[in-house]
Amino acid sequence: MKAKNPIDQLADQPVQWLSDDGPDAGITVSTRIRLARNLAGIPFPTKANTRHRQAVLQMVREAVAGVPLMDGCIDVKMSSLAELDRVFLLERHLISREHCSTRKTGNSVFVARGENCSIMVNEEDHLRLQVMTAGMQLEQLWQLVDHVDSLLTERLQYAYSDDLGFLTACPTNVGTGIRASVMLHLPGLVFANQIEAITQAVHTIGFVVRGLYGEGSDTAGNLFQVSNQSTLGESETYIIEKLEKIIRQVVEHERNARQVLLERKPKYLYDHIGRAYGILRHAYILESSEALRQLSALRLGIDLNMFSSIDAHTINELMVMIQPGHLQKIHNRTLDENERDIARADIVRGRLNDSKRQTTDEQSH
Amino acid sequence: MKAKNPIDQLADQPVQWLSDDGPDAGITVSTRIRLARNLAGIPFPTKANTRHRQAVLQMVREAVAGVPLMDGCIDVKMSSLAELDRVFLLERHLISREHCSTRKTGNSVFVARGENCSIMVNEEDHLRLQVMTAGMQLEQLWQLVDHVDSLLTERLQYAYSDDLGFLTACPTNVGTGIRASVMLHLPGLVFANQIEAITQAVHTIGFVVRGLYGEGSDTAGNLFQVSNQSTLGESETYIIEKLEKIIRQVVEHERNARQVLLERKPKYLYDHIGRAYGILRHAYILESSEALRQLSALRLGIDLNMFSSIDAHTINELMVMIQPGHLQKIHNRTLDENERDIARADIVRGRLNDSKRQTTDEQSH
Repeated sequence: MKAKNPIDQLADQPVQWLSDDGPDAGITVSTRIRLARNLAGIPFPTKANTRHRQAVLQMVREAVAGVPLMDGCIDVKMSSLAELDRVFLLERHLISREHCSTRKTGNSVFVARGENCSIMVNEEDHLRLQVMTAGMQLEQLWQLVDHVDSLLTERLQYAYSDDLGFLTACPTNVGTGIRASVMLHLPGLVFANQIEAITQAVHTIGFVVRGLYGEGSDTAGNLFQVSNQSTLGESETYIIEKLEKIIRQVVEHERNARQVLLERKPKYLYDHIGRAYGILRHAYILESSEALRQLSALRLGIDLNMFSSIDAHTINELMVMIQPGHLQKIHNRTLDENERDIARADIVRGRLNDSKRQTTDEQSH
Repeated sequence: MKAKNPIDQLADQPVQWLSDDGPDAGITVSTRIRLARNLAGIPFPTKANTRHRQAVLQMVREAVAGVPLMDGCIDVKMSSLAELDRVFLLERHLISREHCSTRKTGNSVFVARGENCSIMVNEEDHLRLQVMTAGMQLEQLWQLVDHVDSLLTERLQYAYSDDLGFLTACPTNVGTGIRASVMLHLPGLVFANQIEAITQAVHTIGFVVRGLYGEGSDTAGNLFQVSNQSTLGESETYIIEKLEKIIRQVVEHERNARQVLLERKPKYLYDHIGRAYGILRHAYILESSEALRQLSALRLGIDLNMFSSIDAHTINELMVMIQPGHLQKIHNRTLDENERDIARADIVRGRLNDSKRQTTDEQSH
């Protein structure tokens, strides 16, 4: 059931899983869990030959057929994809940077129609099973990925050691093979200069905070990813619960930082957010870093109830849409940097004007 | 028929004469003509004693009573005004900077209800008669001021020499005593780096171009005033006609510069104007220089038909309203710089949102 270009199916639809915001949508942007799995008796992809890699792909394909969530999924070989489509999948978080740049036999990806689940084949491990959702929904997401994993094991035999757990190509993944991460929007902590302290505190208990766009002060977008570091010696549910606890604390700190800002410098805050909205809604040229910065301010404004016509979902969607691959996919051709800046502004302006028309005027403060 | 504070009457109304834009409202902002006059047989104000100054004021007051345009005019002594009211009159272009800082006996000003005419008494000369209008309306304005001047001479005897013409305190005003000036909005020429050349060309034929806010690149607001330099040896109508010719040429140059910009860099132009609109409509803190800069961009956008809901009149009005004296007059108290920046943003945001509600959405390009 493939269309001519399966990626076009994705490009024509908004990211469905992003629409389901949680209660802290202004801070918790999205959650991702991935499991690293390998098939018993077959060399890891780095050591595997062409025949092995093809065999793995075939076995995974048959196993995926037994997973209802993957019904009608997109099933594409990396080697069959144009550069633009590969970048598109990368920007959509459906494949890794490594997978994006490979064209070897057996390198493939399965993507659920709702894009909330993808399975990379013959990346670093035979399988990289990943599920995603908007907001923070660690428990539910763990249930989901565990369920998919169980269905896969009905047809696949994983490389597993009673001592170590799941065996993986890289030792850092051995054991549970799990990497759970939550993307957080932390403008309050950035403004209060507390990111470094939080990062260190989180690090001491075995978790990692990474700026999503550059490190330190370069984090346009104020987005940070918190994830577990160790996969060995702790159960998946322990890791999930611990991460959830950490996230709740970071969210609490962020809420406090915002409250302080709101009490001490309300006009500064409204100005920052108002200008961002004004620029995004009326600019005709938008560089990527500025767009991320202004969208961050807008997301903060949404959380502070400054806008009635825009929600966090709009911001999530725009953050995906304004990426170079997406802009070029929409225009169906290669765009140079200037053209992308114009295309980016068009998308943002159009989307915010649409939101505007659907509802009433934004509130004034 | 005076209210308790006559200046409050003005503060409560928009500047009426500013609403009457001409056809080139995007470029020609306003026109002003002033005549310097002195009474025969009385020393110039710098040499006059208290009795002379009081006598001059009394004679002018009686003469003003015979001018229908000045019916119900505001008649105030500078010494009776609070600092804020003096600054208010200065910002409204109704008195000069010199007159604003003086409190001597007999220093006074008569202001027509429509603010299109003011008569300073005992400034540098006994009378400084000034008329103003929006856009460029040199001919009509000359007719008006000449008419008022004629009515005044029915009751006043001017110091006049058959050889020199009207006698004035400063030799630069001797002869016609006329200073005619047109305020121009020249963002195109500023962008094209042609202001210097225009200024020099205008200078060689005896006229002057002055940046309204600072010199050279500091001219936030892109506003320039073109006026005659000499008052001796040329008739008023000759000066008026020559100035009108010059203005028409400068307007033509400005139109060309804008056209070139629109053809070569349309997105840059739309971006510049769109951002200005977005910021003015949504900022909560606005410094004076930024406000002038953004209002200049907005005025350009209006001229390019980018907005259906705002006209040049709105910009003219805002340029007056956002000045420190006006902001403090509205709030009826002294405001520090931060408070003024917030008050300024409130005024601009409110005014642009009002415009918005009255009509449809601005056009998109």
